[in-house]
Amino acid sequence: MRFATLLPVVASCAILVLSCGEGSAPAAADRETQPDGVWLLSGGTVVTMDGQGSVIEAGAVAIRGSRIEAVGTAADLGERFPGAEVRSADGRIVLPGLINTHTHVPMALFRGLADDLPLKEWLEDVIFPAEAEYVDEEFVRWGTRLGCLEMLRGGTTTFVDMYYFEDVIAEEAERCGARAVVGESLIDFPAPDNKSWEDAIAYTERFLVRWKGHDRITPAVAPHAPYTVSAEHLQAAHELAVRHDVPLILHLAEDMSEVDEILERTGMRPVEYVDHLGILDDRMIANHVVWPSPSEIELLAERGVGVAHCPQSNMKVAAGVAPVPEMLAAGIAVGLGTDGPASNNDLDLWEEIDTAAKLHKVIKSDPTVVSAEEALTMATIGGARALGMEADIGSLEVGKRADLIVVDPRGLHQQPIYDPYSTLVYSTKSADVETVIVDGRVLVEGGELLSEDLEGVRVAVERYRERLAGLRTRP
Amino acid sequence: MRFATLLPVVASCAILVLSCGEGSAPAAADRETQPDGVWLLSGGTVVTMDGQGSVIEAGAVAIRGSRIEAVGTAADLGERFPGAEVRSADGRIVLPGLINTHTHVPMALFRGLADDLPLKEWLEDVIFPAEAEYVDEEFVRWGTRLGCLEMLRGGTTTFVDMYYFEDVIAEEAERCGARAVVGESLIDFPAPDNKSWEDAIAYTERFLVRWKGHDRITPAVAPHAPYTVSAEHLQAAHELAVRHDVPLILHLAEDMSEVDEILERTGMRPVEYVDHLGILDDRMIANHVVWPSPSEIELLAERGVGVAHCPQSNMKVAAGVAPVPEMLAAGIAVGLGTDGPASNNDLDLWEEIDTAAKLHKVIKSDPTVVSAEEALTMATIGGARALGMEADIGSLEVGKRADLIVVDPRGLHQQPIYDPYSTLVYSTKSADVETVIVDGRVLVEGGELLSEDLEGVRVAVERYRERLAGLRTRP
Repeated sequence: MRFATLLPVVASCAILVLSCGEGSAPAAADRETQPDGVWLLSGGTVVTMDGQGSVIEAGAVAIRGSRIEAVGTAADLGERFPGAEVRSADGRIVLPGLINTHTHVPMALFRGLADDLPLKEWLEDVIFPAEAEYVDEEFVRWGTRLGCLEMLRGGTTTFVDMYYFEDVIAEEAERCGARAVVGESLIDFPAPDNKSWEDAIAYTERFLVRWKGHDRITPAVAPHAPYTVSAEHLQAAHELAVRHDVPLILHLAEDMSEVDEILERTGMRPVEYVDHLGILDDRMIANHVVWPSPSEIELLAERGVGVAHCPQSNMKVAAGVAPVPEMLAAGIAVGLGTDGPASNNDLDLWEEIDTAAKLHKVIKSDPTVVSAEEALTMATIGGARALGMEADIGSLEVGKRADLIVVDPRGLHQQPIYDPYSTLVYSTKSADVETVIVDGRVLVEGGELLSEDLEGVRVAVERYRERLAGLRTRP
Repeated sequence: MRFATLLPVVASCAILVLSCGEGSAPAAADRETQPDGVWLLSGGTVVTMDGQGSVIEAGAVAIRGSRIEAVGTAADLGERFPGAEVRSADGRIVLPGLINTHTHVPMALFRGLADDLPLKEWLEDVIFPAEAEYVDEEFVRWGTRLGCLEMLRGGTTTFVDMYYFEDVIAEEAERCGARAVVGESLIDFPAPDNKSWEDAIAYTERFLVRWKGHDRITPAVAPHAPYTVSAEHLQAAHELAVRHDVPLILHLAEDMSEVDEILERTGMRPVEYVDHLGILDDRMIANHVVWPSPSEIELLAERGVGVAHCPQSNMKVAAGVAPVPEMLAAGIAVGLGTDGPASNNDLDLWEEIDTAAKLHKVIKSDPTVVSAEEALTMATIGGARALGMEADIGSLEVGKRADLIVVDPRGLHQQPIYDPYSTLVYSTKSADVETVIVDGRVLVEGGELLSEDLEGVRVAVERYRERLAGLRTRP
């Protein structure tokens, strides 16, 4: 999708759909007024990502309101719901929406602002000054809108965010129709929004109360990291998460300098340290976890911590390679994340899946490590488990939220198809996502985002680019 | 681009182009009948990849026949060529066509046939039997057609291939309009086409005579590897390459088992060994080169060998990580390659560029290693140098072949743009390629391949899929 050509493209695609005889799919707006009607996505290869690895050829998914009513063959569901409207998925692959378990969405406006720099220089000379000068509610709103639309367009239906002005991020996620777990960053320094710990905690408490119970928005508590938040504050953040029964998001053991610093300060490694503080439990989504020791891996498994593995970010900032095969073997719920677009530089989960499958093979000198199916598992039901949301999302099973995507596998780069997992993991790109459905609502159709003023986004982004371009640094 | 919807899509794009006011670009066929007329690609950011890193905002490229006539600002070239037809590149990025320095194109038909297997099992249980049973002229023709179209669609204008029935591969490359360096694989085993070394050499000699001097097709001699071709045969192959003055393509030091085997047999490491045979020189394109020792890196630099770095293939088959920063520092011409689509699983050079930039950072624990500009250099002028073709391709400079591509950088995943190298390397995908020009001919326009029967390709590919599907193995 292209900003400048939005209207003509949408127009031409509407024509295209009709000319291809794709049938009379009900418009999103229609379905919203008919929440009780069942409709079918029917005819494609349904990759369920259920516990049994079920793949249904000529399959179908029945959707009622925001939930999955049934999953089966097209023939069976056609008989079972004779009057249901049918959207054809013939020749396509239907799978659960992808889950991005770690990002900082508004940083989309910093995408490519500075790359290939030493970490300290990148942070201190570019990112921190840029955040201090430019990050306000308006910035967060447009950055989030840009990032959310990028994610939806590419088939990511759920994302986990931690940044500043998180209320705005939640509002934008709600607005665009995505599912999100959102946590206001808590850090022992003045932030762009809250200048003191007390202000940030008060903000977070209001934030939790405001969003708790929302269908698609899950508020969280998000202390930044063990090296930027004191022991006392980490415990206070955890206490808040427990009291409101919400997830806790934390950067953990991302690079060796963190391990060294925590070791020197506490005599413990980061995972041991936060366990010692009593905050390592199954509400934690731990980001990166590149440097856990073998005993820390056991600890993460015992405590039921979810891990957000961000292979491309870890590579680009040279943080290291997380011991994912070991974490999976220990039974840890590992999801995939893009990290913020300032350090990646996109929100493309397909590339994380592909990279996760390949990176660990070369690191372990073993081409059987992290199979295509395991990589796709991390991006779907594995991610859902990492967020503690596996009862609701991550696989196509009866009763779960209707978060699903349709991939067109007929591109030259995908043909022929011998195995849908191989096709999805090693050949499919975000541009191949054709349809995106969240909570039963169709948000992307024919590869085009529905109901969004993309020209307005383009104009706002260009305004920020002009203001920020002076900060750009390239070695 | 989608097989099944080709006609409607092309139709809708034609409408789209008109409705967007893109101007009256001359059709490819028209230009072919006007080889002496100059036309301009005008108005975009021209990333030249010349030796000075010149990037021209509001730039233009003037094309006369198959060559670049001028490169400059849109204003200057507009004045200099007042009557020239103009194709607008406003808001786009114009750069040299990408160069895929190593692949086995026909293996596109094996894409995803078997993944995540131990190397020996993958080769002996799947690939070798599949090649023995299915690889004939017809297979090679359709596999090459599929792969060539995938590469052109994604902005790869030159590729280096070694496989069997190479005459057919050359014919298909010629037919689709790509530029190619093609070498019949020479191996000390019966191949699908030639059953003896003598037959293969005779075939190669006829092949060299047939294609030598072609504008776009460069024939080469392609002994498979030091561990599959005897010393005597390696020398004979080299003698043939020298006699016909063509490149020599060789897999070299791809994995540790090769290093161990050659060491045990000869007391030398692979690069030293082929140097000892007298065949290591500047006509060699060495594929992979994952395991050169420091002294072998010096040797490669001294001898002027070009290296085809294939990061994603090396990761997926767990071959190892090539010492690319060291090879670049030694002054070796390093290009990027996808390897064959059976082991990658696509022919997407954008992902190799992105991966090359990220992989070496994490391996060296240094985020400054292989910058965006260095990664793009490998895919363009670096690749051209590796092939000994830098006088003709790899950068946008006067007198070079008009091999260039236009990228649309207005996708949500690319915005905002602070630095064209960052945008191209870290955010741009093959689907963002809008226009592809080889030898002055427009082959892709509005993201759609021109003049190709995609439905015919689809039918043929499906026929092979049905026949091969029984061989599929997944762990």
